[in-house]
Amino acid sequence: MKYNIYVVGMGPGAEEMMTSQAVRALEESQVIIGYPVYLDLLTERFAGKEFLSTPMRKEAERCRMCFEEACKGKKVAMICSGDAGVYGMASLMYEMSTEYPDCKLTIIPGITAANSGAACLGAPLGHDYCVISLSDLLTPWETIERRLRAAATGDFCIAIYNPSSYKRADYLRKACDILLEQFEESRICGYVENIGREGTKTVTCSLRELREAQVNMFTTVFIGNSQTELLEGKLVTKRGYQL
Amino acid sequence: MKYNIYVVGMGPGAEEMMTSQAVRALEESQVIIGYPVYLDLLTERFAGKEFLSTPMRKEAERCRMCFEEACKGKKVAMICSGDAGVYGMASLMYEMSTEYPDCKLTIIPGITAANSGAACLGAPLGHDYCVISLSDLLTPWETIERRLRAAATGDFCIAIYNPSSYKRADYLRKACDILLEQFEESRICGYVENIGREGTKTVTCSLRELREAQVNMFTTVFIGNSQTELLEGKLVTKRGYQL
Repeated sequence: MKYNIYVVGMGPGAEEMMTSQAVRALEESQVIIGYPVYLDLLTERFAGKEFLSTPMRKEAERCRMCFEEACKGKKVAMICSGDAGVYGMASLMYEMSTEYPDCKLTIIPGITAANSGAACLGAPLGHDYCVISLSDLLTPWETIERRLRAAATGDFCIAIYNPSSYKRADYLRKACDILLEQFEESRICGYVENIGREGTKTVTCSLRELREAQVNMFTTVFIGNSQTELLEGKLVTKRGYQL
Repeated sequence: MKYNIYVVGMGPGAEEMMTSQAVRALEESQVIIGYPVYLDLLTERFAGKEFLSTPMRKEAERCRMCFEEACKGKKVAMICSGDAGVYGMASLMYEMSTEYPDCKLTIIPGITAANSGAACLGAPLGHDYCVISLSDLLTPWETIERRLRAAATGDFCIAIYNPSSYKRADYLRKACDILLEQFEESRICGYVENIGREGTKTVTCSLRELREAQVNMFTTVFIGNSQTELLEGKLVTKRGYQL
């Protein structure tokens, strides 16, 4: 294969939360391609690189741009917030790569919001957990409901991505109503806005309160399992060690 | 609070897969405490630090050691492989911290094996996923079975931690049998040994083949969801974008 393309998970945003492997991949690249909000976090640090982007919902075009630039002989990195493989571009890049036999992908993992957000709240994912996106742009809402019910049945800790957007203002409320079929209103929850970026905000609350919370697309929501406790303001899911 | 203790996720092992935040926390610390296997990965890079450990199953003693050393006025870091909050020491440290009112915890997230292993195999966690440990040291096997069944019902991608050990040689087979109640034998799976360390080995296989696989405690196993495909040797779970 002639051309390598890096697909890089940049973590939550702050450079100090990127791995040095990710930093090196960006340093090696001539072209950095990504969603504008995340590119903005990199332009100063990686000044001199060529930055290319496409708007939201133009993810396929963004991926194609990577392959087209790579086939010109340029060293290309596609950046994703969080991890490259979690609702990121890695799978779409692999799908498209079958059209570009000269291109090889190198996936560089990053810290996904489930884990970086959990660290802000304490240790809510201390036992088995699920990661579920509430975005129904690409997934039927029925599938999302089915997964929420299954996660509740399995007593998983749950991290919820994309809990809200302008067009989906009531989705978190709908998700809470599904969880309330099986959970008490007092189930311990929390959420984090702007993880690893300016204006990080953490909130702990009950599931009943979460149902009324105003969250945005930069929020990650956490639902405790049946063992999760609030210890001095921190969400803690015990694994079962004897003290 | 007088004393800060870092609880640091070191990622899979290689220093280049640590965040610079994690590296800085270890550099700032005088004492680094952890499980011997992971400490061994750090002794050369952080030469001059005091390294303390306790054996496996002595996790509570290891945590107490952190608080006791911190209360002597030393700067302490507890290190965990992967992420500090995923089957790591963060939740146990928070539980114990209620006994040490002078100590404050700072959790530094790292890349957990679900995400670092996924990057080795392609993009198996490209949609909603579950992380489940098969270790029944601290969790009743019935709970593990219940979670496996729930994960299958929800059509989640699944990352399995601790799939085997000397005393639990047949646990992965038992888990596969539970998944086979709902999945075809051809369900696409894979596993990774020694992620981010010497001797990394990746295998892709069917669920039927996974049932017969010989894996060890340094293996992370991946079960695709109903949409996962094998594309040119890579596990790819599509999110649903139109190419």
